[in-house]
Amino acid sequence: MTDVKVGIIMGSQSDWPTMKEAADILDELGIAYEAKIVSAHRTPDRLWTYGKTAVDRGLHVIIAGAGGAAHLPGMMASKTRVPVIGVPVQTKALSGVDSLYSILQMPRGFPVATMAIGGAGAKNAGLMAAAILANTDPEIAARLDAWRDALSASIPEEPSDD
Amino acid sequence: MTDVKVGIIMGSQSDWPTMKEAADILDELGIAYEAKIVSAHRTPDRLWTYGKTAVDRGLHVIIAGAGGAAHLPGMMASKTRVPVIGVPVQTKALSGVDSLYSILQMPRGFPVATMAIGGAGAKNAGLMAAAILANTDPEIAARLDAWRDALSASIPEEPSDD
Amino acid sequence: MTDVKVGIIMGSQSDWPTMKEAADILDELGIAYEAKIVSAHRTPDRLWTYGKTAVDRGLHVIIAGAGGAAHLPGMMASKTRVPVIGVPVQTKALSGVDSLYSILQMPRGFPVATMAIGGAGAKNAGLMAAAILANTDPEIAARLDAWRDALSASIPEEPSDD
Amino acid sequence: MTDVKVGIIMGSQSDWPTMKEAADILDELGIAYEAKIVSAHRTPDRLWTYGKTAVDRGLHVIIAGAGGAAHLPGMMASKTRVPVIGVPVQTKALSGVDSLYSILQMPRGFPVATMAIGGAGAKNAGLMAAAILANTDPEIAARLDAWRDALSASIPEEPSDD
Amino acid sequence: MTDVKVGIIMGSQSDWPTMKEAADILDELGIAYEAKIVSAHRTPDRLWTYGKTAVDRGLHVIIAGAGGAAHLPGMMASKTRVPVIGVPVQTKALSGVDSLYSILQMPRGFPVATMAIGGAGAKNAGLMAAAILANTDPEIAARLDAWRDALSASIPEEPSDD
Amino acid sequence: MTDVKVGIIMGSQSDWPTMKEAADILDELGIAYEAKIVSAHRTPDRLWTYGKTAVDRGLHVIIAGAGGAAHLPGMMASKTRVPVIGVPVQTKALSGVDSLYSILQMPRGFPVATMAIGGAGAKNAGLMAAAILANTDPEIAARLDAWRDALSASIPEEPSDD
Amino acid sequence: MTDVKVGIIMGSQSDWPTMKEAADILDELGIAYEAKIVSAHRTPDRLWTYGKTAVDRGLHVIIAGAGGAAHLPGMMASKTRVPVIGVPVQTKALSGVDSLYSILQMPRGFPVATMAIGGAGAKNAGLMAAAILANTDPEIAARLDAWRDALSASIPEEPSDD
Amino acid sequence: MTDVKVGIIMGSQSDWPTMKEAADILDELGIAYEAKIVSAHRTPDRLWTYGKTAVDRGLHVIIAGAGGAAHLPGMMASKTRVPVIGVPVQTKALSGVDSLYSILQMPRGFPVATMAIGGAGAKNAGLMAAAILANTDPEIAARLDAWRDALSASIPEEPSDD
Repeated sequence: MTDVKVGIIMGSQSDWPTMKEAADILDELGIAYEAKIVSAHRTPDRLWTYGKTAVDRGLHVIIAGAGGAAHLPGMMASKTRVPVIGVPVQTKALSGVDSLYSILQMPRGFPVATMAIGGAGAKNAGLMAAAILANTDPEIAARLDAWRDALSASIPEEPSDD
Repeated sequence: MTDVKVGIIMGSQSDWPTMKEAADILDELGIAYEAKIVSAHRTPDRLWTYGKTAVDRGLHVIIAGAGGAAHLPGMMASKTRVPVIGVPVQTKALSGVDSLYSILQMPRGFPVATMAIGGAGAKNAGLMAAAILANTDPEIAARLDAWRDALSASIPEEPSDD
Repeated sequence: MTDVKVGIIMGSQSDWPTMKEAADILDELGIAYEAKIVSAHRTPDRLWTYGKTAVDRGLHVIIAGAGGAAHLPGMMASKTRVPVIGVPVQTKALSGVDSLYSILQMPRGFPVATMAIGGAGAKNAGLMAAAILANTDPEIAARLDAWRDALSASIPEEPSDD
Repeated sequence: MTDVKVGIIMGSQSDWPTMKEAADILDELGIAYEAKIVSAHRTPDRLWTYGKTAVDRGLHVIIAGAGGAAHLPGMMASKTRVPVIGVPVQTKALSGVDSLYSILQMPRGFPVATMAIGGAGAKNAGLMAAAILANTDPEIAARLDAWRDALSASIPEEPSDD
Repeated sequence: MTDVKVGIIMGSQSDWPTMKEAADILDELGIAYEAKIVSAHRTPDRLWTYGKTAVDRGLHVIIAGAGGAAHLPGMMASKTRVPVIGVPVQTKALSGVDSLYSILQMPRGFPVATMAIGGAGAKNAGLMAAAILANTDPEIAARLDAWRDALSASIPEEPSDD
Repeated sequence: MTDVKVGIIMGSQSDWPTMKEAADILDELGIAYEAKIVSAHRTPDRLWTYGKTAVDRGLHVIIAGAGGAAHLPGMMASKTRVPVIGVPVQTKALSGVDSLYSILQMPRGFPVATMAIGGAGAKNAGLMAAAILANTDPEIAARLDAWRDALSASIPEEPSDD
Repeated sequence: MTDVKVGIIMGSQSDWPTMKEAADILDELGIAYEAKIVSAHRTPDRLWTYGKTAVDRGLHVIIAGAGGAAHLPGMMASKTRVPVIGVPVQTKALSGVDSLYSILQMPRGFPVATMAIGGAGAKNAGLMAAAILANTDPEIAARLDAWRDALSASIPEEPSDD
Repeated sequence: MTDVKVGIIMGSQSDWPTMKEAADILDELGIAYEAKIVSAHRTPDRLWTYGKTAVDRGLHVIIAGAGGAAHLPGMMASKTRVPVIGVPVQTKALSGVDSLYSILQMPRGFPVATMAIGGAGAKNAGLMAAAILANTDPEIAARLDAWRDALSASIPEEPSDD
């Protein structure tokens, strides 16, 4: 078992510009993670192995991003009881609504914690991972509380034309 | 290798009322098939085994029906080169648009031959399977041609109030 | 601090038939919870208090269900760092797509772990809560693993006409 | 109580390019207003205070713009009986349909007067504010009538290629 | 000029079961109103006359409900500066999304204060009318405040199975 | 009565780049027309007059283009029995689906012959006008037949990379 | 050439309950018509023949109703210059939006005059046919004018609870 | 009968940039094909002839791409029992959802194997054609297996910022 409790996986290299927002916020909060490409369709055996070893490797959260017929988050949820957070990557023709429905509409038994479409969803996936860890890790809780306080404090009173 | 060239699989018993239309038309055309429940999320290993053995078992077409985050057709397409026909089962909240997008929007490399939502799609899946077999099986071709001719001949000239 | 780590809240009594699926699966898994009506619009101060005391009361997960302009999950996520799971309740005119977008599309900073529309989403919210607790509670982990195994084992090989 | 009867609030600095159209038309009609950033999620207490003091401060209309899971207009409508006009800001993935549903689909008890998506909606929010004030302020009524007459008079008879 | 400050108009008798919710809440709040059928397409001259006389007759709010290609609210907004509240009536094929877009997406110059689709929107239209009048009528303000307080007080703490 | 049998009207100068396709094809077919700006909301009286005089002025077809809450085609259909062809102009946030629903979903009694969204719809509106006139005008019929034949003849056998 | 100037065609007997509204209003207006089943897919040669003979048989309008992948109206528009009015029949899973897009979105060259989804569209198709004929047939014009006047006169002033 | 078993047809030259992906993957797999422009509306007789001769010419798969009211795939499926694969070409206003519904929602009797919207769908159409041929052609099967293996082998373990 390693100290890495958060896995970030994605279906394709092309998802990285979106998913990097999850990695960046975890960096900012001082939370270790690993980032892997695990394609549900092109590397299904990699998905199998990742899912089957997730509990034993000590993962507490898996963040999975994918676009189109986005099967990665839901298939991962089928292979492990580690909580899976799904990030619908925006797509060209259907703007990510295809990704969203493929991730969200899971049948009874296999939840995927779905985030907003695109980069906002990826960043929030990182924050949700932090919130889950914060339940039992006071240091992460303190850092997350401080981050949230700083966010609120950063909002100006009035809009600016500049 | 058996004589069964068509596999009908579905994610759940609740898909059977829809998928039975595929079985019925295959019966009508005298084409042998098997019908199995293979849940992508609840029985992923069954999906794996089915896919890995499909070519060797002599399957020429796999008809896969599923609803919601409908991962079965696409995951099967990832595990075998046998042509997969997908049937989006109608759902309660989203009318099967969720099923449709999850089945249709496959990434480059793994096509799923998607049919219309619901029972019409299931019947057409059976007919598409027949058409694929008919390419190299003159008997099935003859039966399919006859079925199509009979369908056309059955249309009355004028609508009836009865 | 109590032993109740899961709070189920909903915007209205009319959400209960949906949200009861979350309560039922938590009962089945032997996980204590509380169920409250907290209307974002009709009882905003109740929402405020619930959110502000959530950490100190020892909550580890808040499951929030709402329909239409479903502000409860997102506003709760604004008031506490306890992970919030959102359940979009199906609606009459827009089938719950309004609930979904209001819950899902949160801005950077305030994730809501969104589940499928309707009862499946509510049940999966309960399972997601269990999965989060299972990270650090071996007994819940064991019960959840057993529940998942039983679900997989319950799937028959073939569809039945009965 | 001040002379400012119209408050323009928005969830984020990034909404200002849209909401400025509301401010501009109020300027054009000679109606005093204030413009504030009030984020439902990042500054919920600011929202609370704004809503609770709105009647006593003499506000007659609150124009609230937000995008995505746009909770600001509806939450403000929950905190004050001052009429709230909501402006759905256009978003990247869902074109503002998410903003629209989050603002429009309010439950019985808390109306939000929803305008068109984007800049046209913001300008019309300003005009709707003017129309509400015009009911009891003959000077604003006269200016609004004149503005409307001028708009109608500005339409040429025939389209021009230039 | 009469004492009736609120006009409820609708495109068809078939809209009345929806629009009656607006009338009922106005009754409950002790606010006088008139209810008329004004079809944009079948009685356009009636629409013209209603709009042209609205200011002089002393109307302060016009609530207009319509379904499908719902032109009544927007055309009324073109004919009078009296604030128009639009209620999209639910339709059979498109669930009222057609009504919604026809009412909401007004061009710059002619705002319609759009409410939620269906009966909730009609009731909220009545409440919005009350809120507009309450700005300058302390008695209505007091009754509306009391109504809102009673609504909040009516929410039980916990859901009930009965 | 003039020789002009086709009127092209549009809600705004900004619709002209789209509607010009209707004018161009009428020019190409040698059919006289007039082009006017008639805004349903900004110049309702102009709409009234246009509609009331359409039959007497000898118009046989009115092509009406508009975007957003596109009331012009339907209101014109209410004011005259001259056939109205509607062209939904593409919009920014909703891609013209708002225009489409506002034009298409007319209630029983007032048909609008709706064309495709955008420029293709405008060109086809011109062709539909020609087809209506061709019923009783052999010269136009001959020119339309020739145009259609030329269109078909212009299609190459194979695609070209250039 | 016969005296029948209006053809009503539909893809299937199941479309008749919808399309009968077109026939009924033509009956009411005393306009002769024929009603035929012409399936684009099941009887394509019937479609071909119908289209190729339409001009010579004296048809001035073809009303074509179809559902789902509704190819009948557009294919008929390809085979004849007689104006084609399309009626999107409501469908089970997609409520007729599939029918609508298949009928409406015709490419440059082949307009289909699309009506509202379902029965209202069918009735309006009959009225649009009458309006086209009325351009050059004073008797039909008089009957259509009278029908429209009667419709307007039938609208009561106030809604009724009965 | 020729050696060409795959026909690629499209409604317009403008579909070629999309459909070329089908041609390219067939080239890559060493599978002969022909590419033709066959417009359902502009060259319906070409469609007729193509369909009627398809079996006798030895075609085993027809890949048909079209956009908007995309009638080509479905009409071809009506004229031949050779399996038809449909590719919805992305469109401007409706992003290809119009193309998708026109191709997908075929009635019982005439299946079209629908692929994803746009270029990914075109490439997958080529791969689906290969898979159908591979059933009875070991050489194609071997090449397709190798192509699929190479695709899987090409996926790196981790995302890269470059």
